[in-house]
Amino acid sequence: MSNFQHIKPAGKAQFMDRYTTKAAELLTPYTDGAKGDVAILGAPLSKPSISHSGASFAPDAMRRCLNSFTTYNIEEETDISGKTIIDFGDIAMHPTSIEECHQRIYQSTKEIAQAEAAPFTIILGGDHSITTSTVKAIKETKGTVGIIQLDAHHDLRNTEDGGPTNGTPFRRLIQEGHLKGEHLIQIGIRNYANAKAYHDYAIENGVTVYTMKDVKQHPIQELIESALNQLDPKVDTIYLSVDMDVLDQAYAPGCPAIGPGGMDPDTLSEAVQSAVRHPKVQAMDIVEIDPTLDIRDMTSRIASLLIINTLIN
Amino acid sequence: MSNFQHIKPAGKAQFMDRYTTKAAELLTPYTDGAKGDVAILGAPLSKPSISHSGASFAPDAMRRCLNSFTTYNIEEETDISGKTIIDFGDIAMHPTSIEECHQRIYQSTKEIAQAEAAPFTIILGGDHSITTSTVKAIKETKGTVGIIQLDAHHDLRNTEDGGPTNGTPFRRLIQEGHLKGEHLIQIGIRNYANAKAYHDYAIENGVTVYTMKDVKQHPIQELIESALNQLDPKVDTIYLSVDMDVLDQAYAPGCPAIGPGGMDPDTLSEAVQSAVRHPKVQAMDIVEIDPTLDIRDMTSRIASLLIINTLIN
Amino acid sequence: MSNFQHIKPAGKAQFMDRYTTKAAELLTPYTDGAKGDVAILGAPLSKPSISHSGASFAPDAMRRCLNSFTTYNIEEETDISGKTIIDFGDIAMHPTSIEECHQRIYQSTKEIAQAEAAPFTIILGGDHSITTSTVKAIKETKGTVGIIQLDAHHDLRNTEDGGPTNGTPFRRLIQEGHLKGEHLIQIGIRNYANAKAYHDYAIENGVTVYTMKDVKQHPIQELIESALNQLDPKVDTIYLSVDMDVLDQAYAPGCPAIGPGGMDPDTLSEAVQSAVRHPKVQAMDIVEIDPTLDIRDMTSRIASLLIINTLIN
Amino acid sequence: MSNFQHIKPAGKAQFMDRYTTKAAELLTPYTDGAKGDVAILGAPLSKPSISHSGASFAPDAMRRCLNSFTTYNIEEETDISGKTIIDFGDIAMHPTSIEECHQRIYQSTKEIAQAEAAPFTIILGGDHSITTSTVKAIKETKGTVGIIQLDAHHDLRNTEDGGPTNGTPFRRLIQEGHLKGEHLIQIGIRNYANAKAYHDYAIENGVTVYTMKDVKQHPIQELIESALNQLDPKVDTIYLSVDMDVLDQAYAPGCPAIGPGGMDPDTLSEAVQSAVRHPKVQAMDIVEIDPTLDIRDMTSRIASLLIINTLIN
Amino acid sequence: MSNFQHIKPAGKAQFMDRYTTKAAELLTPYTDGAKGDVAILGAPLSKPSISHSGASFAPDAMRRCLNSFTTYNIEEETDISGKTIIDFGDIAMHPTSIEECHQRIYQSTKEIAQAEAAPFTIILGGDHSITTSTVKAIKETKGTVGIIQLDAHHDLRNTEDGGPTNGTPFRRLIQEGHLKGEHLIQIGIRNYANAKAYHDYAIENGVTVYTMKDVKQHPIQELIESALNQLDPKVDTIYLSVDMDVLDQAYAPGCPAIGPGGMDPDTLSEAVQSAVRHPKVQAMDIVEIDPTLDIRDMTSRIASLLIINTLIN
Amino acid sequence: MSNFQHIKPAGKAQFMDRYTTKAAELLTPYTDGAKGDVAILGAPLSKPSISHSGASFAPDAMRRCLNSFTTYNIEEETDISGKTIIDFGDIAMHPTSIEECHQRIYQSTKEIAQAEAAPFTIILGGDHSITTSTVKAIKETKGTVGIIQLDAHHDLRNTEDGGPTNGTPFRRLIQEGHLKGEHLIQIGIRNYANAKAYHDYAIENGVTVYTMKDVKQHPIQELIESALNQLDPKVDTIYLSVDMDVLDQAYAPGCPAIGPGGMDPDTLSEAVQSAVRHPKVQAMDIVEIDPTLDIRDMTSRIASLLIINTLIN
Repeated sequence: MSNFQHIKPAGKAQFMDRYTTKAAELLTPYTDGAKGDVAILGAPLSKPSISHSGASFAPDAMRRCLNSFTTYNIEEETDISGKTIIDFGDIAMHPTSIEECHQRIYQSTKEIAQAEAAPFTIILGGDHSITTSTVKAIKETKGTVGIIQLDAHHDLRNTEDGGPTNGTPFRRLIQEGHLKGEHLIQIGIRNYANAKAYHDYAIENGVTVYTMKDVKQHPIQELIESALNQLDPKVDTIYLSVDMDVLDQAYAPGCPAIGPGGMDPDTLSEAVQSAVRHPKVQAMDIVEIDPTLDIRDMTSRIASLLIINTLIN
Repeated sequence: MSNFQHIKPAGKAQFMDRYTTKAAELLTPYTDGAKGDVAILGAPLSKPSISHSGASFAPDAMRRCLNSFTTYNIEEETDISGKTIIDFGDIAMHPTSIEECHQRIYQSTKEIAQAEAAPFTIILGGDHSITTSTVKAIKETKGTVGIIQLDAHHDLRNTEDGGPTNGTPFRRLIQEGHLKGEHLIQIGIRNYANAKAYHDYAIENGVTVYTMKDVKQHPIQELIESALNQLDPKVDTIYLSVDMDVLDQAYAPGCPAIGPGGMDPDTLSEAVQSAVRHPKVQAMDIVEIDPTLDIRDMTSRIASLLIINTLIN
Repeated sequence: MSNFQHIKPAGKAQFMDRYTTKAAELLTPYTDGAKGDVAILGAPLSKPSISHSGASFAPDAMRRCLNSFTTYNIEEETDISGKTIIDFGDIAMHPTSIEECHQRIYQSTKEIAQAEAAPFTIILGGDHSITTSTVKAIKETKGTVGIIQLDAHHDLRNTEDGGPTNGTPFRRLIQEGHLKGEHLIQIGIRNYANAKAYHDYAIENGVTVYTMKDVKQHPIQELIESALNQLDPKVDTIYLSVDMDVLDQAYAPGCPAIGPGGMDPDTLSEAVQSAVRHPKVQAMDIVEIDPTLDIRDMTSRIASLLIINTLIN
Repeated sequence: MSNFQHIKPAGKAQFMDRYTTKAAELLTPYTDGAKGDVAILGAPLSKPSISHSGASFAPDAMRRCLNSFTTYNIEEETDISGKTIIDFGDIAMHPTSIEECHQRIYQSTKEIAQAEAAPFTIILGGDHSITTSTVKAIKETKGTVGIIQLDAHHDLRNTEDGGPTNGTPFRRLIQEGHLKGEHLIQIGIRNYANAKAYHDYAIENGVTVYTMKDVKQHPIQELIESALNQLDPKVDTIYLSVDMDVLDQAYAPGCPAIGPGGMDPDTLSEAVQSAVRHPKVQAMDIVEIDPTLDIRDMTSRIASLLIINTLIN
Repeated sequence: MSNFQHIKPAGKAQFMDRYTTKAAELLTPYTDGAKGDVAILGAPLSKPSISHSGASFAPDAMRRCLNSFTTYNIEEETDISGKTIIDFGDIAMHPTSIEECHQRIYQSTKEIAQAEAAPFTIILGGDHSITTSTVKAIKETKGTVGIIQLDAHHDLRNTEDGGPTNGTPFRRLIQEGHLKGEHLIQIGIRNYANAKAYHDYAIENGVTVYTMKDVKQHPIQELIESALNQLDPKVDTIYLSVDMDVLDQAYAPGCPAIGPGGMDPDTLSEAVQSAVRHPKVQAMDIVEIDPTLDIRDMTSRIASLLIINTLIN
Repeated sequence: MSNFQHIKPAGKAQFMDRYTTKAAELLTPYTDGAKGDVAILGAPLSKPSISHSGASFAPDAMRRCLNSFTTYNIEEETDISGKTIIDFGDIAMHPTSIEECHQRIYQSTKEIAQAEAAPFTIILGGDHSITTSTVKAIKETKGTVGIIQLDAHHDLRNTEDGGPTNGTPFRRLIQEGHLKGEHLIQIGIRNYANAKAYHDYAIENGVTVYTMKDVKQHPIQELIESALNQLDPKVDTIYLSVDMDVLDQAYAPGCPAIGPGGMDPDTLSEAVQSAVRHPKVQAMDIVEIDPTLDIRDMTSRIASLLIINTLIN
């Protein structure tokens, strides 16, 4: 760009307020050896979804929505404008081999974990099928993994009926030996959203399950603390898996599998903030947002706020 | 269908998980003498509506949304996959005679009530004008009727100004002698949503009215129990009339007469569940969903969940 | 119009229920010397907005939504059908001079304030930039002004970076000497929605700031009462400025700057009702609704209900 | 309205160009004895439609779209700013009696025809069911009627299967003796859009039928001239019935029964202009626009231009 | 279904005109040994698409749109109500193995071809990737295949860069030896819609290419006749592959790869009709409609009309 | 970016075909001294528009749509993959001073004209108000300017009634002495789209006006050639101003002022191509696309194709 007085590069915001930092300005493309506070990596994959899904557009949507937030937390009187989000970019997906896509997610997550660019990593889905690959990579990098899963669904479907769909990530992790059932804690599981067989599978494998009724009857911080206490002595690292459909349809209209009876965004936000304060919580994914179904990016806006909240840890 | 390995009939779901039963699979088209747990009948009529309404599309929408739910209630640890919903289909409406439509609803409801296919019957509206016909049929089949109406509006408008519109069902029932005012209990009535004259009419006729303020100040189970206790000794059968616009517009964007200040879906769900446990509650309607205005079938999804909830009685 | 039996003027409602008065029927176009209970004036200006905004369509939308409400408050058992809303109409805006638009808003607000048509005046925005002009006019008519601002944002941006945008109204009032910082009380300010610099400016200038955390931890009536007590001894008149984006995005999808973590409509409604009961509260604006982004006029419906609520003072 | 400098009545256009007259400014509400160049009357009825239709919103939409056109025809170098469109307003419809609605249309059309406010009258539908009523009224006022119908469909359905729907207007006129088959000329009839039985009925009753193939093979002026020559010696007055679905779906996305293979707007416009030049062509209807399905009022814009074109006769 | 007077099975059309047959009524689910005039098979696969595509919903959409047409061709004075469309249903797709999906399409097409249920078969896509599988199956059943492809794109992309996407079907057929380049005739290829390398590949392999310029300069019947004459002596069977994006975006808004400068629907319709009259033209596919992007099913309506047109051969 | 195998920068296309060049790949951000074949500059201004307009989003939309086209023109057998589009970026607009915005457009256009980065420059609007500024800059750089304006409207409104709106650009140029009326040629002017007074102004000032009737009666190349011949001897440089609303609403649904009776895209495309072949045609603007109103970017796609077409000059 040259010395023209009023011309800005294409695609840049028109208006700048000199005193305002947008959260999106914290994004810094990764270069070798770069260090930051949080690292993000996009996994724009939704072809494994059982139903038609445009979740592959979500990494872009979440980054875009970081423009809707500033860096100042008035309630904590904290400005995070000095923090850095290392942006590794997006994993390029293969158009016709889902197996290859999952492999690339595994490999890329491992590579960026090894780059140690930040103490906390966020994988931006994509659908929930990505989690098998990301957790496997985290395990190989950081050791035994415990998972706190915020989700309306168990995601423990059998794989015979459709392969590695977005209904199977935790089943595959358990079956393939990357995760022990007792290291998995599910929060927000909803009525009439899962088959009995999969609840049975969860129980038989020692998975801890908190339903929406539990969420309504206890402060979320309490459930998260209990989960952390349960996992802390047993695992090396804790992974947070946030399926946005844990939220009620009125708040998250952009999830493929919407329904009534879910969590509200404040509760989800508090859950994530409570969890990320624990030193073993080192990675997170945010999955199942389909921006083509969303209304005014409402669901992505909530997701972006979750990302921001990991920065005032 | 023949023995082709991978071909399914047109219109069937592509993906089947062998361990999952969808609530929609409980639907069984009625055949003579069939018995089930709940019977449904569509009344796709919305031409009587005062404002433009596509509520005639709602029976299809509610059936379609049964595909979004499984049969497993994790909080009650109950699987309803063994239950049966007898589906009588839809009443064919006359394109240009609303009087004939109401007559057909009356006659068809009576016929299916007499078929005694299930202990509980749900009429899927349509707009609220259908309720005069259905209640009249229930009364002639089961005796004196009491009604618990969940609604933002009294629906007690005069009939001189427009005939049997969706604003008049309970007025017509009272005027035509099918219902005593003291057998009608209205819950969820909202500020600035009704004329004073109709509130006066309600009071003069002994109708019990709980406003949204009452709903906010008391547990809904308490209001329902009070209503049931009031009706039980006086009537032979209790009819639940659920106008979905009792919900707040943020939760039920698909109702023709949306507005702020309404109920949330959990409260409505608990109201219906509390009511249907009572043995005299034997029929219900769900009305005033316009799928052409709805967002991602959110309102129909809530309605479908209400249907499912009647099965774990 | 002539004596045709069934013909009505174009644009009039088709259906009339003789016992029902719609809130829109309270609207009475101003004529010289007319007196009413509340006066409204439209300020359809949104070109000063930092982001693309159709808030100029909001005065029409709010008037239109008055058709969705009756005049009967069942909870207070009060019928406001005898009240009058004097409608001054809309200020004609200049297509290309924003300075001239602001000047016209100032002048017109002053003219109607001097007309003394009603004890309470509501300015229908438009974006928040209009408030500098309206408050200046109120001050010159009624004396020292105190402001209770319901808003997610401080709206105290510097004016060097963009002139009198919708981010600057209260900064301009303070800078230009029309408002003391200690006479400004902001309620509903949200995390990551403002720059630290502007929070600092607020504090340095003695502005009172209640965040959403405060709103969640205290009954809104308490906050309003506290604000009124603080302002009452110091000012001649109190102005209520309602930026609809103080609401959560799930309730107010039609605001340009939507986001999660906001107020719910019942709280906002109670805030306005609590405030307008105070005799010094004599004017209000409702701003930042973009009907082109809204869903089924949900946001305008809430705004219309706020207008109605000022009538049962 | 008072002497405020910059305030305009609510609902009026903000911007005025002193040298520009909008076609909408030609609209003059009827008062007793008023005379103009064209008279319009809205018949906002669509409940008789076989499929869900919001054509009742079309009179408003067509009037609104008159704001999108000026009064200057550059190709004819003619300014119609001196012409007057007498606007009789809309017929109030009964919410639940379609028979009463049709009766009101008949009676109102007759009343306005007798008022003789203009040499040419346009009825704004509504669906096509209105035409039986309007033509009957015209016949009783002006004598034997010939009809030129621009339509994809015969609209000659039997009435046993649904009463006076939007598929039956010309059948009813013939059956009830108000119209001879040989006085009906249909232009634009489309393949696979009608049952053979109704084409047979047309032929048996002497109806003249031009298909879309005819339209593509001959200049439309030629077809219209031929129709006028055929009707002129036999009838007292000629009525033009314009069903907008004669247009191709790409041009008229707002018709309930859209499809490919239809006319383009220039051809339709030329058809109407050719017809209205004939002195016996004294009335017209424009039907079957559903503004709730339309895209940016495209279909209503074309209809408004048809109205304007009748003014340069 | 029982003997209720006014009740119809759920999902059936409400209104029946006894003299009208809808084209959808010609659909007859296949049973062993059934014979009809045309056979259809759905291939609801769009995961191989390079861009996000919901073309998997198109078979349902095309069947649904058959309800928008009757069986009477007025221009040919032919009623096809006696014809039968054998509906084999849809191929069940594997959620995560695209290779398996293509294999199932191949196998199912072969099975139905061998069933010899009709002299003409139509495969309803899906995206264009399905054509490799269907043509291979046709070739193994009927011998050497010639193809007339109506398309804006060559669909001759290399397979190294993404495997069997919707950009590669004809390349794969040629590379795998199922098709000779000189047996492929492409009509409607558009400027700036293909890489030079693929045009070169077409020319080098003897593919005949007609651009949109050719289409505009010659009657389409002439181009089709020329193509048929070229293929007839060389092949055993001719396959018509209709990519709906050959149409201009104004007519086919529902194709993933829309653009200006394409064909109009009448031309496409004539092309298909001209081709199917030839006895060697025995199979066809219709691909690349994404109903989630379409406007009022316009694109599917055109496709349904293409299906109907094959019946008056 | 580092050496990760499968990771791409955020925002980059996922899929790459090694043999395909997208037109968007020709875009090269300007750096000092850079030279290319065409230069583009965004002028994202629409606040001067008389009606609400989001045309400020159009430069981004047009750039984005360059991704929908390749570089190969099959009809000319020309690959433009070696060409370069120098992208100067967008002019930053002032949020509240339209005068300042116009000044910045003037200054920036002049600066880039002086940079002489390419023999042809395209200004991407924005609304039509920008043209006064751009033409003034071109005139000061290149000498006497002639203009060929493709437009439905004269855009010769008086400036007293609203200042420099999008209805005034050519009036201002003439009034301010930057353009002689006889150097302005308007093509595509439409009936009922302009006031008589402005047609009179055009004629009085020697402006040449071709209406849509002229466009329909003559090949567009002929009109353009005639225009070029008229201007060539009199001016130093010729500027093409393309208001996209010259197109019919069926083709350009994204223009603020849509209507029937306009040009089709092939004609517009040929007009531009014919013009840009003339050596004196050195600059062009494309204005009046509002992407928030458009359908699937159809209007921007046509605009992008116009840009591409300037490259095979």
